[in-house]
Amino acid sequence: DPNLKVFSLNSNPDLAKQITEHIGIKLGKCIVSSFSDGEIQISIEESIRGSEVYVIQSTSAPVNQHLMEMLIMIDALKRASAKTINLVIPYYGYARQDRKARAREPITAKLVANLLETAGATRVLTLDLHAPQIQGFFDIPVDQLLGVPTLSEYFMSKQLDDIVVVSPDHGGVTRARKMADRLKAPIAIIDKRRPRPNVSEVMNIIGDIQDKTCIIIDDIIDTAGTITLAANALVERGAKKVYACCTHPVLSGPAIERIQASAISELVVTNTIPLPEEKKIDKIVQLSVAPLIGEAIIRIHEKLSVSRLFN
Amino acid sequence: DPNLKVFSLNSNPDLAKQITEHIGIKLGKCIVSSFSDGEIQISIEESIRGSEVYVIQSTSAPVNQHLMEMLIMIDALKRASAKTINLVIPYYGYARQDRKARAREPITAKLVANLLETAGATRVLTLDLHAPQIQGFFDIPVDQLLGVPTLSEYFMSKQLDDIVVVSPDHGGVTRARKMADRLKAPIAIIDKRRPRPNVSEVMNIIGDIQDKTCIIIDDIIDTAGTITLAANALVERGAKKVYACCTHPVLSGPAIERIQASAISELVVTNTIPLPEEKKIDKIVQLSVAPLIGEAIIRIHEKLSVSRLFN
Ligand SMILES: Nc1ncnc2c1ncn2[C@@H]1O[C@H](COP(=O)(O)O)[C@@H](O)[C@H]1O
Ligand SMILES: Nc1ncnc2c1ncn2[C@@H]1O[C@H](COP(=O)(O)O)[C@@H](O)[C@H]1O
Repeated sequence: DPNLKVFSLNSNPDLAKQITEHIGIKLGKCIVSSFSDGEIQISIEESIRGSEVYVIQSTSAPVNQHLMEMLIMIDALKRASAKTINLVIPYYGYARQDRKARAREPITAKLVANLLETAGATRVLTLDLHAPQIQGFFDIPVDQLLGVPTLSEYFMSKQLDDIVVVSPDHGGVTRARKMADRLKAPIAIIDKRRPRPNVSEVMNIIGDIQDKTCIIIDDIIDTAGTITLAANALVERGAKKVYACCTHPVLSGPAIERIQASAISELVVTNTIPLPEEKKIDKIVQLSVAPLIGEAIIRIHEKLSVSRLFN
Repeated sequence: DPNLKVFSLNSNPDLAKQITEHIGIKLGKCIVSSFSDGEIQISIEESIRGSEVYVIQSTSAPVNQHLMEMLIMIDALKRASAKTINLVIPYYGYARQDRKARAREPITAKLVANLLETAGATRVLTLDLHAPQIQGFFDIPVDQLLGVPTLSEYFMSKQLDDIVVVSPDHGGVTRARKMADRLKAPIAIIDKRRPRPNVSEVMNIIGDIQDKTCIIIDDIIDTAGTITLAANALVERGAKKVYACCTHPVLSGPAIERIQASAISELVVTNTIPLPEEKKIDKIVQLSVAPLIGEAIIRIHEKLSVSRLFN
């Protein structure tokens, strides 16, 4: 369909290329560069009048740069008479600022939703929002894909025995349950609690992990503090081997060092955020969500249900 | 008035301090920092419920970072029940992207106006918008101050003889006229034209500059190409001495090198954009617009006319 156009900004050029290959179309031509003073310059190099346009961009680091690229691109597409402007945001940044945890805090995840709509976005496709409530921050349709099917398939292909899927905190139990269903495995939960203020946390493990192969699953791994402490606790309490996995490999600050030094034998992530060379270590395996996103774009374009993709 | 609060973000901390000293109040307490992954974290450290809040921030480089700081701050202030959120934007970035010069270009100056309003800004105070039309991009009140009075005062205090105020292009003649009125001097105009496509520009000078002290005035000096070519042309055609001045010292890329190598004897700028150490060269004099902005804030807060400040 010549009315379907897919453009890539600067966050995920490889993923975008794989997605268009999956769909069987060419990537739209646009140049996203900077003026001498650092202001973003965008030039769309083909007509998009009346087209259904998909823009692929994660709001990963540098988050403010990537977000502004997206907003300016939406403005340019709107003014060039795109019929629809569909944002494909594999990783939705600022998602952890989704509520006022303290007085006078911003709710940046909601602000970003408002900014994208103000610029002119008509639909959003994303993966594993940190909180499902973020869908409700938008007044336009939001489809959410999950990393679990892609991650589960990888572990299935490894044909591991005696698996337990582990949630690193109470908030992630639903996600662990979804993976466990696919792997036909039981779950366990790391139950952290602080006995008194200013006393260090106690790591309690709910569920049987003795001599088991544990797979810890989380949505985001950022500084990797939570996941490496969890992995070490599992091994101390008798786990045979510990895998970890997540959808979004933010991996900032001490993350790589901590993973290297931890009891994690392998960390499996997706490419919603690309790994720069210095983060491509032997312990990390990266899986592509391009087929998943490609299928979702085809289904949205053909006005079919997207939820089929993860049920 | 305890209901008047002034906060500074990260672009112009010194200017903000001077402004609050001029007004005679303390700077509002807030912490604007980053999480490990680069996402902006803002924490307002005092109650602002029911207050008239002024936020001082230029959208100078790093422009996308400074813009997001402002948007997130507005969101936090709005949710903390500020009565009004008044943005003091000494330098309004993205102002040169104010029209579609080519097909499928964004109009980022308008997009930014929409984003600021969506976040919750209720008023804007700025200096020398690159195009006065940008005021019309906003649906909230915008007051524009001018650099001309501050710059003119400095040249008046130098008691120069035989002055001509020079506009470096046709677009800047009104600004040159304003300064010339204050200095009781005539004006000249650099009249660039390209005889044929792909032939280099010819610099024609309209007005008498022979043996005169020229003061070239512009709103923004970015890479300093225009202004240094103009200065050199003036000296070649017999000018005695050439000063240059502008409101906004963007000074990106080769600017400092070009200014050093040029016929400009002194460049006078304001502090709407701070100069980092490496740009503080002997040829550059920086004047503070803190008294001007301070007066404007007092007048807005007391519901008096601001235009008085530059008439
Ligand atoms: N980029 C970030 N990096 C680390 N922590 C964050 C970030 N953004 C928000 N937070 C904090 O993380 C907490 C929310 O995380 P969670 O409890 O996992 O939803 C809030 O207290 C936020 O202040
Ligand atoms: N940050 C920037 N640096 C250099 N040129 C720019 C910038 N932003 C916009 N422009 C271009 O500058 C031109 C407008 O400048 P002007 O004619 O001085 O108003 C347009 O062609 C823009 O594409």
